[in-house]
Amino acid sequence: MEIDGTVRATEKSHRGFELALAGARVVSRAAVPLPLGVVDKVGADLNTRLDHRVLDLRKPAVRAIFELRSALLAGFREAFLHRGFVEVETPKLLRQGAEGGATLFSVAYFDRPAYLAQSPQLYKQMLIGAGLERVFEIAPAFRAEPSDTVRHITEFTSLDAEVGYVDDPEELRGLLEGIVADSVGATRSVLEASGNPLAAGLPRLELPFPRYSFATCEGWLGRPGAGRDFGTEEEKAIGERVARESGAPFYFLTDYPTSVKAATFYARRRDDDPGSTYYFDLDFRGLEIASGGLREHRLDPLLANLASAGLDPGSFAGYLEAFRYGMPPHGGWGLGIDRLVQALAGLANIRESRLFPRDRYRLDP
Amino acid sequence: MEIDGTVRATEKSHRGFELALAGARVVSRAAVPLPLGVVDKVGADLNTRLDHRVLDLRKPAVRAIFELRSALLAGFREAFLHRGFVEVETPKLLRQGAEGGATLFSVAYFDRPAYLAQSPQLYKQMLIGAGLERVFEIAPAFRAEPSDTVRHITEFTSLDAEVGYVDDPEELRGLLEGIVADSVGATRSVLEASGNPLAAGLPRLELPFPRYSFATCEGWLGRPGAGRDFGTEEEKAIGERVARESGAPFYFLTDYPTSVKAATFYARRRDDDPGSTYYFDLDFRGLEIASGGLREHRLDPLLANLASAGLDPGSFAGYLEAFRYGMPPHGGWGLGIDRLVQALAGLANIRESRLFPRDRYRLDP
Repeated sequence: MEIDGTVRATEKSHRGFELALAGARVVSRAAVPLPLGVVDKVGADLNTRLDHRVLDLRKPAVRAIFELRSALLAGFREAFLHRGFVEVETPKLLRQGAEGGATLFSVAYFDRPAYLAQSPQLYKQMLIGAGLERVFEIAPAFRAEPSDTVRHITEFTSLDAEVGYVDDPEELRGLLEGIVADSVGATRSVLEASGNPLAAGLPRLELPFPRYSFATCEGWLGRPGAGRDFGTEEEKAIGERVARESGAPFYFLTDYPTSVKAATFYARRRDDDPGSTYYFDLDFRGLEIASGGLREHRLDPLLANLASAGLDPGSFAGYLEAFRYGMPPHGGWGLGIDRLVQALAGLANIRESRLFPRDRYRLDP
Repeated sequence: MEIDGTVRATEKSHRGFELALAGARVVSRAAVPLPLGVVDKVGADLNTRLDHRVLDLRKPAVRAIFELRSALLAGFREAFLHRGFVEVETPKLLRQGAEGGATLFSVAYFDRPAYLAQSPQLYKQMLIGAGLERVFEIAPAFRAEPSDTVRHITEFTSLDAEVGYVDDPEELRGLLEGIVADSVGATRSVLEASGNPLAAGLPRLELPFPRYSFATCEGWLGRPGAGRDFGTEEEKAIGERVARESGAPFYFLTDYPTSVKAATFYARRRDDDPGSTYYFDLDFRGLEIASGGLREHRLDPLLANLASAGLDPGSFAGYLEAFRYGMPPHGGWGLGIDRLVQALAGLANIRESRLFPRDRYRLDP
């Protein structure tokens, strides 16, 4: 409705003023009853909410998530551009998948198949070879994830960065923690200015974030030297231990062993210890948010890693060409925007972090 | 190579200084010969360049396009956020295509088909119904375009905006021209600061951009009242006429007739003349850059438009629900980022505006 009137002071209202109606006009009529209450005290289940997402989004508490999300994206972009990064857009339609096929969506591309990108990994590395020394991308990525849990969606937003002429993963961690701290700080400023209630839940971050080695965490879990990746429950246990150790919400897990990264053929093995890598994760209170490290920039070890992973070099011709004609040492990371929004807004299900989430069973609305 | 040395003045160099070498180290070896020369005076044809895009991008003149592109995207986002817009991310995997099927890519989505989004059109309108009053998105979009010309690619970047509580297309044109002028101005500042040679080609824009009605342009073309859309050559002729009339690089073509927008079922027909719409284009020197207008926000006329376009309302259930429960008057536009980069950088082929373009025949690298 459009309403005309005069605001005047009154003691009858607890806000101290009232609107004296002069005229009113119906802008658009709504059918009744609504399939989902907008002001109900009792919450609907998530499936019903997502079935009627437009009405669900009319609740201020739901809309607040997406104001946070927009501010966070803007904060990230500003932090990257301020550090001399160029924003890039890599292709989402690929002839091959980056890292193997089981979770790729296939597309009927005229008279042949194509695949939807799961990650811009190979392209962002190629751009380092092209001489764009610092690149980032925030874009959709796709994973044919058959699991139906609170952690799995098929369409997600990936924040990727790659940096050339880097020889020490500590330089990457320093960049990443600075960018995260700046982005979260900028988000808080925007949300505080607009009165968004989620501002209060945003952590105040101190640099540097603490670092714990993979081996230290394995010791905490009582399985020293096992050399296998942490499961969801183990990540949570590590998060609880870190909370007691330092109280820091964000922390790095460093020095991942090669055994955990065997399929990550582009991960550089340590020069002084091939059983370990220069890879790390960034976690937030037990939830993995980002993963990155130094990449293998030398063609021969890269081909050896491909062979170890059982992958066909012929499927990576364009990627490998970039390494054949000169490639500096480089590294970077990928960060899940949906997970970070979930963490910062305190959401139980990752679907709540997206306007119109997609999963194994949901393509509507 | 990494090189250490001391810079010292000398008259022998035309730059006035030289580097006295102290040490040098090979960072990464390159195979020879290169499949594409990086410093050749003679240019390679575009297909060869795109086949070896990583080497092609090492040319400063090519890389400059993508520094312009990154600055332009940042300029747009800043202009939108400054005007109170929220950045959104709508789904790229859809159960149905937005506007009919011929140019949709299909995806094998587990045990059923899905389609890649050609446009966020329906979703951005739904978000107005959700109470996000100003939204924008810059994201990939996909079109199974079988033509193989300098104007056709299958993966492109769409800039979309939608604004609620708007009843006059002039308000939309005012927003769009302000956002374009701010973005191009911000881009020029960034490129000038970095010494990018493309800065010199960016137009200095004056507001307002001139407006010419569809009927006026039909008169210029010698086919008054024909009521069919302008072809590529006609757009160019209009651009040349506008250049003589006003000299302005950007201009609006307004008041499109319903006959041209018949398939655009969401376009609102004029209340006082159903043979005309509130739709407009934004052109740059004879090239269509953006298209938009007021949308039909009332359910019954919207259903009538769907029927006229021969579309099944059952395919639009989620979209139509947003109109059933209250939808304010609204409008917006879509703008092709690739075309705008092509125009601003003076590129002959739209493929040059993308890092790794995709077309009917190209999925590599």
